[in-house]
Amino acid sequence: MIHALSATTDLMKHAAAPQLVIVGSIGIDTIETPREKRVEILGGSVSYACAAASFFVKPGMVGVVGTDFPAEHRALWEKMGIDLAGLQIEEGKTFRWSGIYEENMDNRRTLVTDLNVFERFMPELPEVYRDAPYLFLGNIAPELQLHVLEQVHSPKFVLIDTMDLWINIAREKLVEVVGRCDMLALNESEARLFTGAHSLMDAAEKLLAMGPRFVLIKKGASGSMLFSKESLFLLHAFPLGDFKDPTGAGDTFAGGLMGALAESDQTDEKSIRRAMLYGSVTAAFGVEEFSLERLEALDRTEIEARADQLKAMCRMD
Amino acid sequence: MIHALSATTDLMKHAAAPQLVIVGSIGIDTIETPREKRVEILGGSVSYACAAASFFVKPGMVGVVGTDFPAEHRALWEKMGIDLAGLQIEEGKTFRWSGIYEENMDNRRTLVTDLNVFERFMPELPEVYRDAPYLFLGNIAPELQLHVLEQVHSPKFVLIDTMDLWINIAREKLVEVVGRCDMLALNESEARLFTGAHSLMDAAEKLLAMGPRFVLIKKGASGSMLFSKESLFLLHAFPLGDFKDPTGAGDTFAGGLMGALAESDQTDEKSIRRAMLYGSVTAAFGVEEFSLERLEALDRTEIEARADQLKAMCRMD
Repeated sequence: MIHALSATTDLMKHAAAPQLVIVGSIGIDTIETPREKRVEILGGSVSYACAAASFFVKPGMVGVVGTDFPAEHRALWEKMGIDLAGLQIEEGKTFRWSGIYEENMDNRRTLVTDLNVFERFMPELPEVYRDAPYLFLGNIAPELQLHVLEQVHSPKFVLIDTMDLWINIAREKLVEVVGRCDMLALNESEARLFTGAHSLMDAAEKLLAMGPRFVLIKKGASGSMLFSKESLFLLHAFPLGDFKDPTGAGDTFAGGLMGALAESDQTDEKSIRRAMLYGSVTAAFGVEEFSLERLEALDRTEIEARADQLKAMCRMD
Repeated sequence: MIHALSATTDLMKHAAAPQLVIVGSIGIDTIETPREKRVEILGGSVSYACAAASFFVKPGMVGVVGTDFPAEHRALWEKMGIDLAGLQIEEGKTFRWSGIYEENMDNRRTLVTDLNVFERFMPELPEVYRDAPYLFLGNIAPELQLHVLEQVHSPKFVLIDTMDLWINIAREKLVEVVGRCDMLALNESEARLFTGAHSLMDAAEKLLAMGPRFVLIKKGASGSMLFSKESLFLLHAFPLGDFKDPTGAGDTFAGGLMGALAESDQTDEKSIRRAMLYGSVTAAFGVEEFSLERLEALDRTEIEARADQLKAMCRMD
């Protein structure tokens, strides 16, 4: 009897869904900034987002790498407390991306995009992931995002991210999947491209009309805006004197946000505002170094301290 | 006895210094935006700033116009409760300025600058203005700003504004006058030009080293930042779906700020943060129409309502 009970407990333990599942790209990046060039470093939206979320919950990662993927990257994710049951390893090379930031880091140009195994990526969620209450659909093709949505049972809150490419080539499918999510995250230019509106207020109204309860517009160093039909929340980015690499900042922000939200297990607007604050300060740490180098060395105490500092900087009375 | 007493009271009334004195330019502007062109409308830094301040105190205006200056503009200032004892009328034409805003209003080009009587402007403060506790040195040549500073007795708080022109051609004099003020206001690109620093954090540090207690960096629709040696305050701009003319927004912001500060008669940081909120929402009204057309129709109740809205939009917990 004791044996049987213990076996059941173990089974239940293994069978517990992660509180948060994140789907996205995994890449090996080569990045050049005005001051430095770094070759073949760990990147990709799901890597940044899971790393950020890991300060709040143990996120489940869904992504694909090739057989060339370095064991040390996998070890780093495990060290950070990321669940890798949803990581697929396919014969071939891992996705490679290369980009260069212009002076002042305001613009970047993509130099190389070798999709490799990512080209045939078909996100399949381990059975246990399908009961996850929080889901972040990182930036991949809308039909793959839809495929993920069709596998999950009844998530409490789904965040979807996207990019200009999908707005341009898969608009209809994107509108369909956005309509099934709770929150859409995108940057200023994407919001304008998606809606044809110049003013962000007008753009947000049109995006909300597609169905999500919330629209999050990311403005980089200028902060972010959370729109709902009834309200607007304005958040400053944590001001940084200097930073090394803005790659992945949006994914880190969204990952931290979803991690904090999943930890709180509340989906009201007040909880989302609080989660955005955590996402924002986590992203501000992330850009201080390349890849996950700063997040790897970060702890929750530092995040809390920076969140308190940002709140103090925004205090009006 | 009654007569004598009443005469003394009248005399004292007339002799009372304005709580706030503002010095700057007065122009007749011709402005073209992507949607509209307006010819010969009232403009100038001291006009915008005094109009904004008039919701909080009765500001004293120091500026110069030509004999061609339309009586209706003067009547409008009087209607708004602006004290015109410091307004000089010189033989000749009033300063003319003309500019065109590019698509999206992100950039503007100056088409015409006819200084006219403004070229020989020498700001002389009426005796009664010299005891004003609050002083706003709008954007004029640093040596004229210094000349004003030399006339005032012991102001509690002096704000100085400037522009790229003076940073380029009168840097030394500007540094001297900035060192004698409590707060310096300038925009992002001016902060970088003045200091050679790219990061606003570094720029602010260098500007604070020139002597002012506070440095205010204006970022237009992206809000503003108040730096002191010990603290940083981040303020969002009130989000607008649409606006007609951003001309004078910075002056309206600074004028509203100084008006609210002079009304509170406190110069601690908490009071400055609160005054910035008022300046910001006043400026957000101002840009809704050309010239003073929106401010002319505005009342304090609308300002308070928008201030409350902005506070609610920024609430984190």
